[in-house]
Amino acid sequence: VAFLDGQTLADIGEFGLIARISAILGERGAPGALEVGPGDDAAVIVLGEDPRVVATTDMLVEDRHFRRDWSSAYHIGRKAAAQNLADLEAMGARPVALLVGFGAPGTTQVRWAEDVARGLADEAAQAGASVAGGDTVGSERVTISVTAFGALDGRVPVTRAGARPGDVVRVAGRLGWSAAGLALLQHGDPVLIERHAGLVDFHRSPQPPYGAGRLAAEAGATAMIDVSDGLAADLQHVLDASGVGAEVDLSGWADDVLAAAAADLGVTSDAWQRTGGEEHALVVVAPPAATGVPGRAIGRIVDGSDIVWADGAALRSGFDHFGGST
Amino acid sequence: VAFLDGQTLADIGEFGLIARISAILGERGAPGALEVGPGDDAAVIVLGEDPRVVATTDMLVEDRHFRRDWSSAYHIGRKAAAQNLADLEAMGARPVALLVGFGAPGTTQVRWAEDVARGLADEAAQAGASVAGGDTVGSERVTISVTAFGALDGRVPVTRAGARPGDVVRVAGRLGWSAAGLALLQHGDPVLIERHAGLVDFHRSPQPPYGAGRLAAEAGATAMIDVSDGLAADLQHVLDASGVGAEVDLSGWADDVLAAAAADLGVTSDAWQRTGGEEHALVVVAPPAATGVPGRAIGRIVDGSDIVWADGAALRSGFDHFGGST
Repeated sequence: VAFLDGQTLADIGEFGLIARISAILGERGAPGALEVGPGDDAAVIVLGEDPRVVATTDMLVEDRHFRRDWSSAYHIGRKAAAQNLADLEAMGARPVALLVGFGAPGTTQVRWAEDVARGLADEAAQAGASVAGGDTVGSERVTISVTAFGALDGRVPVTRAGARPGDVVRVAGRLGWSAAGLALLQHGDPVLIERHAGLVDFHRSPQPPYGAGRLAAEAGATAMIDVSDGLAADLQHVLDASGVGAEVDLSGWADDVLAAAAADLGVTSDAWQRTGGEEHALVVVAPPAATGVPGRAIGRIVDGSDIVWADGAALRSGFDHFGGST
Repeated sequence: VAFLDGQTLADIGEFGLIARISAILGERGAPGALEVGPGDDAAVIVLGEDPRVVATTDMLVEDRHFRRDWSSAYHIGRKAAAQNLADLEAMGARPVALLVGFGAPGTTQVRWAEDVARGLADEAAQAGASVAGGDTVGSERVTISVTAFGALDGRVPVTRAGARPGDVVRVAGRLGWSAAGLALLQHGDPVLIERHAGLVDFHRSPQPPYGAGRLAAEAGATAMIDVSDGLAADLQHVLDASGVGAEVDLSGWADDVLAAAAADLGVTSDAWQRTGGEEHALVVVAPPAATGVPGRAIGRIVDGSDIVWADGAALRSGFDHFGGST
């Protein structure tokens, strides 16, 4: 009913918000994954047969990780879920559930908070996972903390540390799309934003290649990482952990969608692909003899300690969350 | 070395902070609980034989859940861990691990952040758990989001919904200590704060009765809850979930420490015990025939829907995190 539209979190209170959100969430992932769902002291999440839980957490803060004028509440919820689910993929895990901490000012519209919950639940469902519960608190800035729970189903977890010289480096998922979408939003021309809506939407709500992590683990991947700080920075994490180097050639990575946006903005798409963060593509390292490894080959692991780019570029870049760049 | 003392998070950056904190954490809980610890895309937490994870999350925000002038960084870390570990106890779970999201301004002293990490790790170790990893971000207010992971080891999870008429209501742990400590801090007299340091310390870092939840579950508890919003409000959650009422009599709950502080402040300790929040005592409901149930008996479950206090008091109070009281 219309008069409800203007309700704020302060109007309905903490327990009112929990009731409204619980009605949205339901159990949308694998049947039976929640022995105890939202509303008790803790959730009970059923992992299957394997008594190991793969777990990761991220905190997103308004105006640092998202802007309410650039992204809808629904997209913010989807992105918060996606970036944690992508971390599970990067271990070879099957996403099972999310827990969510949600901080917001009392003046926040109830509908806005509900849309965040819808985004979280929809993204989780896309990955096969349920929202198992969470916590709501008052805070000056909207703050969303997501913890994701995955199952290994007997697989060996794929860390960053197993890459060996001779292994092939692949990328599953999009590369540069989130960065291109961000560049279009920063440029601000509504005609270009409309023309390249796929890139802008991808920035607002990146789409990890769900399922690729499990396939890669089963195919014998030796190392994986999710692209959150940029390909250059994240592949470097693998190289540091494994004590190896890599030769990388992106010249074969044709992407007409990216090229068209770059042309319209008068730039090249190269930097977007190499250093764009929040892409949530999956870097997969696997022996050359492995079959069924998802992703496109972009290089190989060599003796050394750094990335050698085929075109001679020298860069190593990342995003520092406290201020400077590293 | 001395010149390091003034370093801020902005000085050392996100990866610098992660390195410093990782050195503090180590694996302090049960051996073998972390197949993969901090530093990869996700942690791999080993639950034992039972493939169900009990999981809960809480978000703490500066000036809403703690004050940096009333609590040291170390106490803030301990409290953040304790309130989540207490939720695991309330399900009958064995604490195994924590994940921590930490948001702070770039101007925060590195030493302060390290002390929070020490508090988290020490409290986790007290409960038998390890810190498995986390996320650090920049934020205007210090924000700490803890997710706790517990194992059931074959036990049935104890929810809020199983209380039946005739069951005995018990409380394990302290009741009113956190509220008394808060009252002493608000009163502000340093002589009284010193004289009742045990209560003030308990407010800064409440001590849940670790292990009591498992004992209670094994003894046949039908319902449990952790006292975070106050005994009256939290027991009411059990009554609502179970569709029952309760008769409660606190007159036998003698506590000389609490009485002494109440006398010095010119109040009675009654309200502290009934409505004080963040006590993290454990309310245990169990059949009268059950043996080995931890805690002191304070009443019994009856037909009905509310708490009937033996002294005729009429109250039902809680804390609403978006502003009002419920």
